[in-house]
Formats: sequence, structure tokens, C-alpha cells
Amino acid sequence: MTDARSELRRTLAERFGEDISVPQDLQGLEGLLRIATHATHRDWDDRPVGPDLVRLLAAVAFCAPSKSFLQQSDLIHVRDPGLREAVVSLVPSMPWMSRAPALLVVCGNGRRLRRIFERRGMPFANEHLDAFFNPAVDAALVLMNLIRAAEEAGLACCPISLLRDRPQRLAELLGMPDHVFPVAGLCLGYPAQRRAPNPRLALAGTLHTDRFDDRGIDPTLDDFDRRYVAGRAAFAAPGAPPPQTWSDERARQYATPQRPGWGAFVRSRGFDPT
Amino acid sequence: MTDARSELRRTLAERFGEDISVPQDLQGLEGLLRIATHATHRDWDDRPVGPDLVRLLAAVAFCAPSKSFLQQSDLIHVRDPGLREAVVSLVPSMPWMSRAPALLVVCGNGRRLRRIFERRGMPFANEHLDAFFNPAVDAALVLMNLIRAAEEAGLACCPISLLRDRPQRLAELLGMPDHVFPVAGLCLGYPAQRRAPNPRLALAGTLHTDRFDDRGIDPTLDDFDRRYVAGRAAFAAPGAPPPQTWSDERARQYATPQRPGWGAFVRSRGFDPT
Repeated sequence: MTDARSELRRTLAERFGEDISVPQDLQGLEGLLRIATHATHRDWDDRPVGPDLVRLLAAVAFCAPSKSFLQQSDLIHVRDPGLREAVVSLVPSMPWMSRAPALLVVCGNGRRLRRIFERRGMPFANEHLDAFFNPAVDAALVLMNLIRAAEEAGLACCPISLLRDRPQRLAELLGMPDHVFPVAGLCLGYPAQRRAPNPRLALAGTLHTDRFDDRGIDPTLDDFDRRYVAGRAAFAAPGAPPPQTWSDERARQYATPQRPGWGAFVRSRGFDPT
Repeated sequence: MTDARSELRRTLAERFGEDISVPQDLQGLEGLLRIATHATHRDWDDRPVGPDLVRLLAAVAFCAPSKSFLQQSDLIHVRDPGLREAVVSLVPSMPWMSRAPALLVVCGNGRRLRRIFERRGMPFANEHLDAFFNPAVDAALVLMNLIRAAEEAGLACCPISLLRDRPQRLAELLGMPDHVFPVAGLCLGYPAQRRAPNPRLALAGTLHTDRFDDRGIDPTLDDFDRRYVAGRAAFAAPGAPPPQTWSDERARQYATPQRPGWGAFVRSRGFDPT
């Protein structure tokens, strides 16, 4: 137990840039350590991830809690090679998706709830943002639980939110009907190598007591930028240009509109996200 | 290993109403079993959950992946007794929340990203649904990871999405500024007793291969209603009225508008969810 405890402290200190104490006699330290060492992976070895394993991990993932027990999330396992290539081609910046042993798409699903009303001849009284928000949150819970399940089984993952860049085409390819929408893709496989996890914002900026307080937002960002640059510099090739800060990278990425048509797509699937 | 393997099969067969095979030689079976036996809890024993433990679990939870590495989620630990009572009073149907050893609120946070642009004198070019969707998904990932972390440490949880029923008042109580919004509350504590997990829709209705296909939506709902009623009947007190189906319960709950003002609240916090 001592080993997992010190390893957990070390891992968190590295990610958060501060010492986070681990209460004495806490159980489950190995499990906490596995969650704390989560990192996204894009390199897999050649061990296959077959449909039985995907089915098992999907079932375990669906054990996530669900808003009002509505169970508004579905998974699509993209197996057909031609279809996979078509899906991967929607994200030209991520050709390595082709090499993932398994590819899934996590969806929000508002159809079953509406069908319950249809079968009773009752009008659906909830066409507003909440009815879109709930399946989105359910899908994210299933996505996180699927990543946890996969990592427990020794696999590694990369969630692909960029699959939402061309949602209309993705929906066509995967036959998503009205009131079904993608939240993210997920690449799965056995990792080719260990990857160091990314740092995280200091808890002073993200964990609040009683009242939300971000008067320290600028120091939080500056501290994170410093740690991020130091971490990147440590792994940079000799002679490489100095790494950008996290803030600069985010500013560059979001300087232009990202998925400005997402609302139009969501409305085209029958939701009213207002 | 044999024990965890058969226990996992048994648990999934009970929840899904079908046999789900567990591949031979799979690692992490105990971890998968813990995820698969997740159940929400509303009864806790009197062991306290102190701020150090909350801080540790929060840190582990923030190790969740984050959309485009934007880290758009925050946690508020509601500790002050008067404030807790005020928050609990927003959900009159859940007075047992008062007895939870710890109460947190999981938030989406679009402020840091906007601040990055503000500090550079750059306009924010992403006022549309995607900029609200991403922090909502990030918050749900952190919520699920927090539940996983808590359960690994032997605690049990109940997520409280009904805290969004009165978001304006909740935001006032907890001092949430513009571009910060609640996704759910989370009650945490050491469980007073073991609880049986809820059943789940059959995978035939929720796990699709290559193309989304819910032509079997009615049989999926009927099968689930049958299993749900059978499960409830088995635990019903003698002479109790026959349990309602899951579909009937959902139809009753959503027969009237639920959180129709959620979109207006989200807009009032500065987002444009269209």
C-alpha cells in the first residue's frame, strides 16, 4: 500500500504542481492511481480488440449513472474497413485513427424518450435545451466510464471530439436518425508505449469551497503556462523552437470559429437547443 | 481471477438481461466489476468525508480527459452548514441530501478560455452552441471520474441533476459568475448498506455495429419494462400496488415541462446555445 500511496502523491504533484495529501488508511489506492495516471494514447501495438471485448467494455460503460434513469446514450462500433476509412477521413489532421484497433462513436439519444410518448399518444412537452443537454451529459458519462473500463482492462484510448467537425456527414455515414447526435469518437487499443499524462490546472483555480472564486484566474493561467512550457521543454528535441504556452496554443486554436454549425446540425436532428 | 470473472458475468447478466461473455485472460476483472456494480446511494453511515479526502478525489477526478485540453470544468465543495441547507432546499423532493457527508457541485466553466482571449486583446470568435457544449461535456467527464474515484476509495455517490431545476438561485448561492453553470450536484459518503444496481437496456438496443439501427426500439423498451417490473416486484412489500413500468414512470415524469427555463438561464450567463 505504501508504494501506491507515494506513487499517487508523486503523480498528482507532477500533474497539479502542488502536494496533494492522501489521507491515511484510504482504501483503493491502486485504483485511484490508475485514474490519476490516465493519458490519451495514439500509438497501439498489434494486439486486436475484437467485438467480444468491445461488447464487454460497452456493457460495463453503460453501467454509468444516467440522468433521471433515462438511459439516453448509445455506442456505435465502426468495424467495416471502408466505413472506418470514410469516418477517419472526416478528420484529416488525425490519420493515425486508421491504426486504432477499435473505433467507436458515442452518441446522445433522445429517441427512446420521445418514442415512449409516441406509443402512448401523448405530446412530448420538453422541446427545449434541457432535452438536448441531458443526452449530451449521459453520453459523456458513458464515454468516461468506457475509458475507465478500457484502462482497467489494460487498453488505452483517445477520445476524438473533432468527429463533430462534420456532424452531418458523420450522421449520414453511420445512419444516425433524428434525435441522435455524436458526442465524440473513441479510439481503443493496447498501448505501444507508456505515455506521460498531461498537467492540470492548480486546484486553487478549479476546486472552490462554498463559493466559486476565480479572482486568481490570471495567476492560475500563468502558473499553468509555466509548468506546461517546462514540461514540454524537458522533452523537446535539441535545437527545437521553444514550446508555446498552453494559453497561446488555446488562443491560436480558437482564434477562428470552431464548429459554428454545431447548433444548426443539432436543430436539423429535431432538437431545439434554446 | 475466476471469482471476479464469474461475478462480472453474473452482474452484467442481471443488469442487461443477457449473457455478456468475458474474454479469456482479460486483466483488470476486479476493476471492471467495481464499475459494473455501480449503484447510486442515498444512505450513508456516520463516517465523515473531510476536506482533505474531497481534495484528493477532486484532483483524481480532474485527471479526466478534457475537450481540446481546454480544462473547462470546476468543482464547488459546499461545506458551510447554512449554505448547504439553502442548496438542499432547492430540491424539496430530496431532503436526504442534508445527511450526505459531503456535497459538491460540478460546473462547466467557459471563463478561462474567454479570459485567455481578453488578456491578448483578441475577440472571442466562438459564441455558439459548441462553446457551451464543450464545458458541459468536460463537466460530465469530471463528474463520472469523481464517482469512479470515490467508489474506488470505498465511498458511494448520488448525482443530483435536479439542482438544475432552480439554476439562477443556485448560481446566486454559490457565487457563479457569467460563463459558469452547474451540471449536477454530487452527494458523497461511506455507504450505510449495499445497494443493488439498476438494470440497463439490452445491448441490442444501445450498442450498434457500423450503422445506428433502432428498428427494434419497441421490443427493446418492452423487454426493459418487463425486467424492470420483475425486479421491482421481487422487492415490493406484501400487498403493495403492482410496480409501474420504467416507460410509464418516464412518461409520467416528463409529461410536464422539466427545466423549460434552462436555456434562458444559460443565455443569462452569457452563452449563446444556438
